[in-house]
Amino acid sequence: MEQRLSMIGLAVADLERARGFYRDVLGWRAAEGPPGIVFFDLGGLVLSLYPGEDLARDTGRATMAPAPGGQRGVSLAHNVADAAAVDAIFERLRAAGADIVVAPARAAWGGYSGTFADPDGHLWEVAHNPFWHLTADGRVSMTPDTA
Amino acid sequence: MEQRLSMIGLAVADLERARGFYRDVLGWRAAEGPPGIVFFDLGGLVLSLYPGEDLARDTGRATMAPAPGGQRGVSLAHNVADAAAVDAIFERLRAAGADIVVAPARAAWGGYSGTFADPDGHLWEVAHNPFWHLTADGRVSMTPDTA
Repeated sequence: MEQRLSMIGLAVADLERARGFYRDVLGWRAAEGPPGIVFFDLGGLVLSLYPGEDLARDTGRATMAPAPGGQRGVSLAHNVADAAAVDAIFERLRAAGADIVVAPARAAWGGYSGTFADPDGHLWEVAHNPFWHLTADGRVSMTPDTA
Repeated sequence: MEQRLSMIGLAVADLERARGFYRDVLGWRAAEGPPGIVFFDLGGLVLSLYPGEDLARDTGRATMAPAPGGQRGVSLAHNVADAAAVDAIFERLRAAGADIVVAPARAAWGGYSGTFADPDGHLWEVAHNPFWHLTADGRVSMTPDTA
């Protein structure tokens, strides 16, 4: 199995609520697609939102929703070019009343990051990682800059 | 917030068990990195494995492990070029004793796919999706072929 990821699907309780968060708070634009699922083209990778009961039906495994104070054991990270860009994103999240899990701060691993949760408890870390390079088109390179 | 994903982190109960599954069963090669976390370079995106207690500590939210018969509400998909490639991956998974959640079959959405779970219950769908294009370097394009 090649070392690739094609899609990440986030199970949600209310598709319109989730769609609204990604569109209005994060500012993302959904792709054309069938009803009952929302696709975001992340450039070589697709993020989808779909009802949790669909995943339960398709897999035969009951969907877990996180208990209050819990999380799902999966985290997503969005890296940005510098600490100021982390702060700017959290200003927008705060203004929108988003669930701020960890306010932006210096991290033990040497970067600067904060974490928010989407309306279904999916965790997003927004990070500046000085050890990784972001290419011009926003892809992560684990090779440090050699300039 | 730009429409990008930089890293996906999977919380695991036993880092060596998880590392072994991704290395020996999936055939993936880990990148150099610090101790206590395993990075896989997916080409513009990083997948990491790390102890669930680290995520609980960093976020202040208790890690959920899926109950037997449950899942986490997140699914990952690995798209391949045709149905035979899906079957070939599941032959390897079966031979390795992996947890096959859904055996490969025609899917209601028009593709061909199967789903397995890693040792911590993270779900992977392996799919042939005839409506999306795979570029030569394995990235997904939601634009159909126009050849």
